[in-house]
Amino acid sequence: MAKEKKQVKAITSMSEDFAQWYTDICLKAELVDYSSVKGFMILRPYGYAIWEHIQRIMDGEFKKTGHQNVAMPVLIPESLLKKEGELVEGFAPEVAWVTMGGSAPLEERLAFRPTSETMFSDHFAHVLHSWRELPMLYNQWCSVIRWEKTTRPFLRSREFWWQEGHTIHETAQEAEQETEQQLWTYANFCKDVLAMPVIPGRKTDKEKFAGAEATYTVEAMMKDGKALQSATSHYFGDKFSRAYNVTFTGRDNTLQYPFQTSWGSTTRLIGAVIMTHGDDNGLVLPPAIAPIQVVVIPVAQHKEGVLDAAYDLEKRLKALDLRVKTDDSEQSNGWKYAEYEMKGVPLRVEIGPKDMEKGQCVIARRDTGEKYFVPLEELESRVESLLKEVHDNMYRTAKERMESNTFAFDSVEAVKEAEERHTCFAKTMWCGDEACEVAMKERAGVSSRCMPFEQEHLGDVCPVCGKRAKKMVIWGVAY
Amino acid sequence: MAKEKKQVKAITSMSEDFAQWYTDICLKAELVDYSSVKGFMILRPYGYAIWEHIQRIMDGEFKKTGHQNVAMPVLIPESLLKKEGELVEGFAPEVAWVTMGGSAPLEERLAFRPTSETMFSDHFAHVLHSWRELPMLYNQWCSVIRWEKTTRPFLRSREFWWQEGHTIHETAQEAEQETEQQLWTYANFCKDVLAMPVIPGRKTDKEKFAGAEATYTVEAMMKDGKALQSATSHYFGDKFSRAYNVTFTGRDNTLQYPFQTSWGSTTRLIGAVIMTHGDDNGLVLPPAIAPIQVVVIPVAQHKEGVLDAAYDLEKRLKALDLRVKTDDSEQSNGWKYAEYEMKGVPLRVEIGPKDMEKGQCVIARRDTGEKYFVPLEELESRVESLLKEVHDNMYRTAKERMESNTFAFDSVEAVKEAEERHTCFAKTMWCGDEACEVAMKERAGVSSRCMPFEQEHLGDVCPVCGKRAKKMVIWGVAY
Repeated sequence: MAKEKKQVKAITSMSEDFAQWYTDICLKAELVDYSSVKGFMILRPYGYAIWEHIQRIMDGEFKKTGHQNVAMPVLIPESLLKKEGELVEGFAPEVAWVTMGGSAPLEERLAFRPTSETMFSDHFAHVLHSWRELPMLYNQWCSVIRWEKTTRPFLRSREFWWQEGHTIHETAQEAEQETEQQLWTYANFCKDVLAMPVIPGRKTDKEKFAGAEATYTVEAMMKDGKALQSATSHYFGDKFSRAYNVTFTGRDNTLQYPFQTSWGSTTRLIGAVIMTHGDDNGLVLPPAIAPIQVVVIPVAQHKEGVLDAAYDLEKRLKALDLRVKTDDSEQSNGWKYAEYEMKGVPLRVEIGPKDMEKGQCVIARRDTGEKYFVPLEELESRVESLLKEVHDNMYRTAKERMESNTFAFDSVEAVKEAEERHTCFAKTMWCGDEACEVAMKERAGVSSRCMPFEQEHLGDVCPVCGKRAKKMVIWGVAY
Repeated sequence: MAKEKKQVKAITSMSEDFAQWYTDICLKAELVDYSSVKGFMILRPYGYAIWEHIQRIMDGEFKKTGHQNVAMPVLIPESLLKKEGELVEGFAPEVAWVTMGGSAPLEERLAFRPTSETMFSDHFAHVLHSWRELPMLYNQWCSVIRWEKTTRPFLRSREFWWQEGHTIHETAQEAEQETEQQLWTYANFCKDVLAMPVIPGRKTDKEKFAGAEATYTVEAMMKDGKALQSATSHYFGDKFSRAYNVTFTGRDNTLQYPFQTSWGSTTRLIGAVIMTHGDDNGLVLPPAIAPIQVVVIPVAQHKEGVLDAAYDLEKRLKALDLRVKTDDSEQSNGWKYAEYEMKGVPLRVEIGPKDMEKGQCVIARRDTGEKYFVPLEELESRVESLLKEVHDNMYRTAKERMESNTFAFDSVEAVKEAEERHTCFAKTMWCGDEACEVAMKERAGVSSRCMPFEQEHLGDVCPVCGKRAKKMVIWGVAY
């Protein structure tokens, strides 16, 4: 029996079942595959290529600000992990443990890294001597394991791929600046590379990273109105330095503890891109990370000269350093259009005998579906300007959607009613008490996403307890 | 108490203690650090930067021949690992086992990948349908664990970083071609990027990869005369396809098994570079992978205009896309010279007041120690040609050393005597019997490195058993 032929099939519509729509895209656009290990995903070539572009561009940004990559051991001895109490408490329930090496049980079990503050601190203690060596600005690209109970591709899986930056500084002020600088690196990356608007802000104490003094976040809004925490940056003070005995000789010749940060972003960003830009025809990719930026489709390709004309367009576009593919396969045009829409390719260039007669080609945009007849001599300039327009339009559209689905409220009931109508971002004032945060969750079903850097004055009282309000908080339903 | 000040210290000389010399370089050039996990190493920024250049260049070569990167789960269920008997037998003694996820024991223990043939085969079984989808040419960059008893930085550590390519093909012939093509990619990489001569050839059955039908290798000779297996490429036939039920509908509409390959290279290449090119002053890096290709040293930098002149040289060289650093620190010139020699920087450019008067700079080569006075207007052309010369000279020197330390023998005793005088490559004929291979190891202390593609006719009898010889083998003492 022959196996079933591979086809482009329809996906569940977003309005019918958003979660199923998301899963359909992950599989149909061939981003991921499930594996034989429960809760672990496989990044297929198309999905991994997106991640490679994210890595390349983000890594370049990190290096511009003086960061260097390193590689730390993937396994962490339990005793080392436990030296900082809050961190281990936060992560212990999710750790995968190696207990056997070769045929023998280990004397001490080893944690598969859930995050590497402990290993970095241990290394810093080993190599740091003098204030002259500070700051140490390190980063690593690797995978981590967190033993989640329920998993979804990109959003929550037992293994995921990420970068984790870890830095130490001479002063608290420098470390705090680094923490904020890296958050802005993420915010700009989301805007300029992923065409994704985010709200940068500070997490409440309840929501901050285990062991951190302060956690900053960029929060994005998905098309279903839910919030997705897209990257975080943490300031640790000298807590880890003290726990791991990281010291240096200061300018005054005394032993001192450096101040530490960490910051991370993950393959979750791909999930964010899907749910920020995707539609019922599939993925819609921002040009900067699209593995194929332009697909060239020869129409009536058996007709004389059509294939050569298509290859010529490909060659001209590749000369601009664009990522271009000509699909000269035997599939129908309809199949090809659907396939590259599913894969989110930003621009499709069609050329057939009639176009050749007229000295033109057709360019179709993935984001709007608009089609343009373009004189062949204008190919390069139009493709370049269209790619920029696609990015800008994707960002603008997403930003307008987020803004039009964000509301200010002055009572818990109003938040609750709004969320019941449609999941949204709710802005309210807040007194700063965790009890009120918990009450908001219990009564309105939303958790605090962040205290945005851009604060607004919505009043003077906390809508939960009526006491004096200190901060404006954005609340939402989180992924 | 202030910590000790960081200094460039002398390293053990190569002739005194080669192993200690090697370890000294790994630590003093700040390539690696030991970690708190026994047998696991840390790649420090300088060591990781070398690995990044290796990755970038090699990945580009893989992509040129149509390979795509993916990411497979790091954990493999024991039952999946065991489906192919020879592979699991080969690796079982070295596997690290995850037995707990979160707080609960797992129903089935999971192996930290020692290699991923099993995961790839399982995935291929899931996604492969038709001959039209073949070949699938996949690769991944990741770390693996093998629970070694004795470890050394880069050469043998419990965790190491590598790439593993895994491909499936419609026919045996195509898979065999892939296996050889990838071996030549490695051989050319060693020559063109690492300036390291290698002997490409086929492994004997005794030395081949567990589960492979054929293993090909590139073998390099270190400065102590020992052999270092630098990369391998394996042909599996349809063994894994059958074990993992990987099938496709063929051109004739019947279900068929694809033919499979895998090929890998690791951070061990950095160890190979150290022991191929290093000297008593430290590392000597081939320009293609040197994190710093040119270091600019301002001499008498407090004198007017010197620093600006140095920065100007840096700027001009960076415009050539070279990796350049100006060391304007307070350290002495002597310290700086020793530091960048230790770090293996290919070229050092010095400029001081006298040079400025004469409109010149001084360029010193790391490989030969030669110094040149270069008119400033010739900076770019001389640096570019010198970098090429450095590479070529490093390759030529290493090749001459390997050739002059490779000998043909016609008796086991002659091999034994030669190896006792000085570790070398021994070429002999061989009948093809494993018993004779074992005898050579027992009596002369050497193992077969490979049957080189470039065969020579050294006679007609096996020096061990006297029977008819089939192949010429290169024997050596392996790392």
